[in-house]
Amino acid sequence: MTEKCGVVGIAFEDRNAARPLYYGLYALQHRGQESAGIVTHDGFQQHSHVEMGLVGDVFDEDDLESLNGSTGIGHVRYPTAGSVDSCCAQPFSVSFKSGSLGLSHNGNLVNAEEIRDELAGLGHAFTSDGDTEVIAHDLARNLLNEDLIRAVKRTMKRIHGSYSLTIMHDETVMGVRDPQGNRPLCIGELDNGYIIASESAAIDTLDGELVRDVRPGELVVLSEDGSGFDSYQLVEGESTAHCFFEHVYFARPDSRIDGKLVYEARRNLGRKLWEENGVETDVVMPVPDSGRAFASGYADAADETTATGEPRAEDDTGVEFAEGLMKNRYVGRTFIMPTQDERERAVRLKLNPITSTVEGKTVTLIDDSIVRGTTSTQLVSLLKDCGAAEVHLRIGAPPIVAPCYMGIDMATREELIASDKTIPEIEDVIGADSLAYLSPESVAEALGALRSDLCMGCVTGEYPYDIEGEPTDREVTRPAIGGQTIQADD
Amino acid sequence: MTEKCGVVGIAFEDRNAARPLYYGLYALQHRGQESAGIVTHDGFQQHSHVEMGLVGDVFDEDDLESLNGSTGIGHVRYPTAGSVDSCCAQPFSVSFKSGSLGLSHNGNLVNAEEIRDELAGLGHAFTSDGDTEVIAHDLARNLLNEDLIRAVKRTMKRIHGSYSLTIMHDETVMGVRDPQGNRPLCIGELDNGYIIASESAAIDTLDGELVRDVRPGELVVLSEDGSGFDSYQLVEGESTAHCFFEHVYFARPDSRIDGKLVYEARRNLGRKLWEENGVETDVVMPVPDSGRAFASGYADAADETTATGEPRAEDDTGVEFAEGLMKNRYVGRTFIMPTQDERERAVRLKLNPITSTVEGKTVTLIDDSIVRGTTSTQLVSLLKDCGAAEVHLRIGAPPIVAPCYMGIDMATREELIASDKTIPEIEDVIGADSLAYLSPESVAEALGALRSDLCMGCVTGEYPYDIEGEPTDREVTRPAIGGQTIQADD
Amino acid sequence: MTEKCGVVGIAFEDRNAARPLYYGLYALQHRGQESAGIVTHDGFQQHSHVEMGLVGDVFDEDDLESLNGSTGIGHVRYPTAGSVDSCCAQPFSVSFKSGSLGLSHNGNLVNAEEIRDELAGLGHAFTSDGDTEVIAHDLARNLLNEDLIRAVKRTMKRIHGSYSLTIMHDETVMGVRDPQGNRPLCIGELDNGYIIASESAAIDTLDGELVRDVRPGELVVLSEDGSGFDSYQLVEGESTAHCFFEHVYFARPDSRIDGKLVYEARRNLGRKLWEENGVETDVVMPVPDSGRAFASGYADAADETTATGEPRAEDDTGVEFAEGLMKNRYVGRTFIMPTQDERERAVRLKLNPITSTVEGKTVTLIDDSIVRGTTSTQLVSLLKDCGAAEVHLRIGAPPIVAPCYMGIDMATREELIASDKTIPEIEDVIGADSLAYLSPESVAEALGALRSDLCMGCVTGEYPYDIEGEPTDREVTRPAIGGQTIQADD
Amino acid sequence: MTEKCGVVGIAFEDRNAARPLYYGLYALQHRGQESAGIVTHDGFQQHSHVEMGLVGDVFDEDDLESLNGSTGIGHVRYPTAGSVDSCCAQPFSVSFKSGSLGLSHNGNLVNAEEIRDELAGLGHAFTSDGDTEVIAHDLARNLLNEDLIRAVKRTMKRIHGSYSLTIMHDETVMGVRDPQGNRPLCIGELDNGYIIASESAAIDTLDGELVRDVRPGELVVLSEDGSGFDSYQLVEGESTAHCFFEHVYFARPDSRIDGKLVYEARRNLGRKLWEENGVETDVVMPVPDSGRAFASGYADAADETTATGEPRAEDDTGVEFAEGLMKNRYVGRTFIMPTQDERERAVRLKLNPITSTVEGKTVTLIDDSIVRGTTSTQLVSLLKDCGAAEVHLRIGAPPIVAPCYMGIDMATREELIASDKTIPEIEDVIGADSLAYLSPESVAEALGALRSDLCMGCVTGEYPYDIEGEPTDREVTRPAIGGQTIQADD
Repeated sequence: MTEKCGVVGIAFEDRNAARPLYYGLYALQHRGQESAGIVTHDGFQQHSHVEMGLVGDVFDEDDLESLNGSTGIGHVRYPTAGSVDSCCAQPFSVSFKSGSLGLSHNGNLVNAEEIRDELAGLGHAFTSDGDTEVIAHDLARNLLNEDLIRAVKRTMKRIHGSYSLTIMHDETVMGVRDPQGNRPLCIGELDNGYIIASESAAIDTLDGELVRDVRPGELVVLSEDGSGFDSYQLVEGESTAHCFFEHVYFARPDSRIDGKLVYEARRNLGRKLWEENGVETDVVMPVPDSGRAFASGYADAADETTATGEPRAEDDTGVEFAEGLMKNRYVGRTFIMPTQDERERAVRLKLNPITSTVEGKTVTLIDDSIVRGTTSTQLVSLLKDCGAAEVHLRIGAPPIVAPCYMGIDMATREELIASDKTIPEIEDVIGADSLAYLSPESVAEALGALRSDLCMGCVTGEYPYDIEGEPTDREVTRPAIGGQTIQADD
Repeated sequence: MTEKCGVVGIAFEDRNAARPLYYGLYALQHRGQESAGIVTHDGFQQHSHVEMGLVGDVFDEDDLESLNGSTGIGHVRYPTAGSVDSCCAQPFSVSFKSGSLGLSHNGNLVNAEEIRDELAGLGHAFTSDGDTEVIAHDLARNLLNEDLIRAVKRTMKRIHGSYSLTIMHDETVMGVRDPQGNRPLCIGELDNGYIIASESAAIDTLDGELVRDVRPGELVVLSEDGSGFDSYQLVEGESTAHCFFEHVYFARPDSRIDGKLVYEARRNLGRKLWEENGVETDVVMPVPDSGRAFASGYADAADETTATGEPRAEDDTGVEFAEGLMKNRYVGRTFIMPTQDERERAVRLKLNPITSTVEGKTVTLIDDSIVRGTTSTQLVSLLKDCGAAEVHLRIGAPPIVAPCYMGIDMATREELIASDKTIPEIEDVIGADSLAYLSPESVAEALGALRSDLCMGCVTGEYPYDIEGEPTDREVTRPAIGGQTIQADD
Repeated sequence: MTEKCGVVGIAFEDRNAARPLYYGLYALQHRGQESAGIVTHDGFQQHSHVEMGLVGDVFDEDDLESLNGSTGIGHVRYPTAGSVDSCCAQPFSVSFKSGSLGLSHNGNLVNAEEIRDELAGLGHAFTSDGDTEVIAHDLARNLLNEDLIRAVKRTMKRIHGSYSLTIMHDETVMGVRDPQGNRPLCIGELDNGYIIASESAAIDTLDGELVRDVRPGELVVLSEDGSGFDSYQLVEGESTAHCFFEHVYFARPDSRIDGKLVYEARRNLGRKLWEENGVETDVVMPVPDSGRAFASGYADAADETTATGEPRAEDDTGVEFAEGLMKNRYVGRTFIMPTQDERERAVRLKLNPITSTVEGKTVTLIDDSIVRGTTSTQLVSLLKDCGAAEVHLRIGAPPIVAPCYMGIDMATREELIASDKTIPEIEDVIGADSLAYLSPESVAEALGALRSDLCMGCVTGEYPYDIEGEPTDREVTRPAIGGQTIQADD
Repeated sequence: MTEKCGVVGIAFEDRNAARPLYYGLYALQHRGQESAGIVTHDGFQQHSHVEMGLVGDVFDEDDLESLNGSTGIGHVRYPTAGSVDSCCAQPFSVSFKSGSLGLSHNGNLVNAEEIRDELAGLGHAFTSDGDTEVIAHDLARNLLNEDLIRAVKRTMKRIHGSYSLTIMHDETVMGVRDPQGNRPLCIGELDNGYIIASESAAIDTLDGELVRDVRPGELVVLSEDGSGFDSYQLVEGESTAHCFFEHVYFARPDSRIDGKLVYEARRNLGRKLWEENGVETDVVMPVPDSGRAFASGYADAADETTATGEPRAEDDTGVEFAEGLMKNRYVGRTFIMPTQDERERAVRLKLNPITSTVEGKTVTLIDDSIVRGTTSTQLVSLLKDCGAAEVHLRIGAPPIVAPCYMGIDMATREELIASDKTIPEIEDVIGADSLAYLSPESVAEALGALRSDLCMGCVTGEYPYDIEGEPTDREVTRPAIGGQTIQADD
């Protein structure tokens, strides 16, 4: 699994693509803190620097100096339990018959094992368990006999699942997005070049202009001299399966994904939440920082109509929006965990209530999602200890009931509080006076998308891809895997 | 100078005071990131662990284990240019004739050199340049001939300037605040003990109750068994000189300082700012995170009255409050600086505009203060580049025109943009369509304090203490320093 | 190039092969200080820990714990300029169709590029430049269609050059030595298992018994339960090409290589040196520690006969053997280099003369070899500064005139002082009163070997393998590389 | 206790005394590996860099750059159990009324507690437990009223015990040696300055000339411009108490201490050992590296006479000297200890026998001393396992029966194998076929010293200083401590 990650690729007029790649990765740091890497090509050879750690720790001035070249790709990797291992840090590089390949991958293939076995049958030897090495070997093999575009197309037809890739073949940088457009990927124009990145915030950071999203099934090839890009629609998807959770939680609020500004999407989700499940309380407060945009939209909507949808009376000042929980910005770094009986402290080290906002008041607490429910339980208890009369919890997404197979490592099904509990049961566990989520339909509406164009596997348990042991939510038209074999001489 | 720092002291029923001290320091981390330290006493001897770095990096489980004792003090130190030196990390410990002393100091003495010279004349040898060592030596000398309370009193009469101290004499933990109460210090009750800390957020973190602020000129002595505390009003100040800047910038919003919740103080300052200098624009946005509470109060006030103080008409929806700048939470750690011509990038790596909030709109940007003016200039330029029609800057404090001698290392007078410029001139430099600050009078009103009870040296250039070469803002009654000498046998 | 390295492989009765592998690598640390690694197999899967650094720094207790398995291989890698890169740290691991492979390699192939190109033509993609990956891929490919023994044999017929390998195929550990036996490799019996290692000192360290050297062209397969080993003479070499320099410099003196104890070999070389080129001086002193065994043999021989080969007269006490240079054991770790004009200091930080041994005396200084001549020049100058009347330099090997292509990274031809200078010219540069080397014939005699059974490429410029642009010293019978192609389906 | 340490002080013509101090400390690294430090003075202020670790790790180029000044002192500290603490790293620096002081100390005071208590009574506060801070405070106090020379003299009269000090008062560098000259200290002339150092090897490293030892009771003051030095014989000792163990074990063999080259001293001790307790065996071998010089002298003597003191017969070739144990140069760094049943391995990782030297032979093993006896036991057992017919152990010093109070941390009395066992009993424990030590009288003879001029407390249990609970070996004339008090105004 290649988890939630950030990818970037750049073609630049001058020789130092490494610096914009570095700043681009910095802007994507929220997509992965486990490892960071950059691979560049100077026309003759690849240069690579990949290490465990944050972007700021992995690279120093000398590293950037040594990464010669006007083109390059980069990657930040998301930390997941059990995989803290340098073997899977990316970009992944190989050299093969007709040159070198570098790959940065965000997503998750569902048929990696099949392809791996077929390639192994042809003699391929693998140094890691990763999907990325499988894609690299498949592509390298195709390149033995075909030109670049046809080789990428053949590989795209072979691999199934979600993938946003930046690829460097010798000095040529490309971007590829899976036919259903599950993970984000966009194109930007810089002063002296072009960039492909997971999120538009990376383009902004470099003072560039967002050109557009990479289309599902599209291959984008940057000119080596940074002067433009070519597009090849290699696979036509019948429908898209954009991950709605990117908008809810993962992407930066200042990024624009599939035509939608994430911050606005979150405010819309908040508005919908009021309309669907608003509750009149003294104060509305976000869980910082994740619930802030939701709470802002929720409060705005609440200023206009009452919880029952009536326009506010003239003298009805509506609900008050206030910050009621203060975040300690230093928590999340190294930290000695409190002992069992100091457990409540853990949450209070992170978030401390502002008494004046809470004491004696009825409170609506807004967050983006509930995974295990631990933090929500602690926060409700904390607010009540500080004198909140009531605590109502409103969530800007549907209950998460199933795992994500598309590259976001949430939790196992057993750990998800909503996987086997009704909403009243969750309410009970968490101790909230009321709890409400947003419906999938409202999510689609808030995102201005068709319900069927979104991947909502984690909240419906039905997936846009064939996952072994899981139902699918659509008819996916794709070539039968069994019918297409790789041949050594083809 | 002992800079902006955080201090804490704890007396606990059980043997492990080190853990609550650790969590207390974690809660005060914003007051100092240069070094961290804890000194405990187990009834027989001191244990000490002081190192350069963040709290989470300085201590591991073994360190906390080794810090035996039911009482102890801690310190976090603020980083200042040129002083990155382990010599001044605190708590400072010495052993002397009748036991051991540990000191944590927040503040700055104005007569440290004089006392140092006198003590040197009596044979004292110093290992550092710090004020803290001077206080320690003076107190140790007084303890040769006097009981603890009288010795502390004698030292308090000798030292002039700002100081909030936690002191450990053998296993007894004390807190002392200077007669004008310049730096904050408060007392809290824990489940099994008592705590003295710079800010009440440290008490909250330990699930304790804020008892009250330590009074100016007061000595608080914690019972060694954690069962209570005694108070000694050792020096009567004629007036206080609370630092108003703690409320504006330095303290955590969730702390309660001198009876006032910082978050509310900031909202009040924001309200006053609207009333004094409001401007009607499409949108009001904070500089995150420093301007958020100010902007929230400002926008609330603007919902009620127009910029000219009239009540809003029925159909006048007032100003819109919105987040328009998104912060990259990872910046501020290790980071390769952009080159000269990438300079604009530096600000955009930290803060990225949300286009939909900005484009084509008139914008009011709210911040707490302007020091050098660099960031403000970059932000205004950034917003205009993103299409803002107008950018108006509103600041929740008066112009900073002079240095702080009381322990906050702002900048030299030359670096302060307001030290030699009129407001129109600053407006011009920064490129804002308009710029307005808050008046000192409104600050006092917003804080619910007498103007004369606040230290406003940095915005008036007049100080509550005799600073060589600076005017004073009041008559300070205090014993003449020259007249009181320390005698070896007295 | 796989440089001077140390390899080890172990099959053990109990589950923890990692500990004896660790101690074995510790004993081979002199063969490589750049990186260290261990790969084990627990019957189900491989466990691997490979890092840059010394054995003692690379592994901690937890690492050894996690390296489960009763079989495993290990590697230490020699540092060479420009290759300080984790990409080439070993053992190298891959998984392929029918299992996993781990390889530790000491030596250097001469046809790696050819094989690499052929494999690339079949679709193989490579993650490094190393010979070892080439061997791994070739072997993995052969294993698709053949049993282990036949696959290894096919690979041995393909690869040319010097190699001593330990290989782990799934949980089976093997040792392979090239048909000319260039690098050392030996078999040992332990209390609970068997070991294959570069040098017998690794066996001694584990209190094991040296069984014998691995024969040139032999494959040794250890039983997985540690109960024994099988031998397969896969390739018959026509002659051997043992590296004579292992005996002169590289191996530990307490190792037994190809039947010869290295310490005795060095003493014999010293004796020959006296017989061939002895000079009567007041004192004979070694360059510590490299020249000690040579000097001891030289002095012993000098006690028996005069420099002209006559028996000593009764009252002739012969030459005095003495330590005249003291080594600072701490040099060689981190160290700030002296500036240009402090250059002489560099040698004196490492080696300081004992004046009483030197002053006013004629001195013979004994070393094992001269590479660039820099140290020799400094030492002669140092001894003269300390009052030596004469300094005669005697070297226990012939002049090094050409590079090593077999895996020892000495220097480029241009850097070798003897590559373009006569002995009197070198004498002149170094400033010695006389200089003499040992002849190749005497080396062979001292090692009890046929001249033709030794690789002496670096002192003759003629090599036992076809090196492009270099003459060969023999007729090497081997299958034509061009004639044997790898076929995907063969 | 200030343990076994190395001290150095330099006055230099040019501004960069830090570099020669660094190289000097490198040469003294064997005297202390726990911490290293340099303090310099640039005419205006002190610069200091002191850290835990080896010299090469503690300083980098930037550190040396920042240590401005033409004068300075340095220190390396010996690691001892329980004191791994930065508090005691040296040089120790203080500023006081009339300037600054820096001290580097090698030795141990016997009356530090008394002086400490007196100073504390006068108001002094201490930051550490160390002797060095006591000396610094006493000297600083004396300097209030007296010139430098008289102040040092007064301090020397106060402190009792062993001390070799380098002191920096402002920019003046001095060296002081206790009246009995227990620890070594010598003066050297450099190209552009003068140096005071624990051992002459530091002078050699800087290409300087040894001028002479600092005399017991002497103060040496270096001219600030590096042009010379002045001598003040401040205290006349009645007799000396040079530590004989410096010659036996601690000093470098290439150092000259109290007029005697250590290497020659050790060879003489070896000769005496043969004469006193020689035994005829096939081979004489040193424990490397500690026994090498002893074994060389022993074997030389054995070439001349038989064990019974007769001249050798013509055809009697005497004993053979050979290296029989090979040292692994990498052991001693980080290292995972073998488990209980791998215990024998620990010694074999360090020292491996050369079978040909040992097998079937009678062996004499030579070492400098036996402390706990553990290593000797392991070595005898190891040699017997390798086939030695007999192993005879000869030690170049008397049995160590008592602790050292003068600054060498050997072991507690209980741990010393000879403290409660006869020689036959030790022989039995160690498993040697015979064991013999050297007598104290022979040690004195070998060192060319009067028995009464040496401190032999550790082998006699009688000390040259009054140690509480231990007998003294002489009448020490010194001012009564009780009778001389420090007065604040004196």
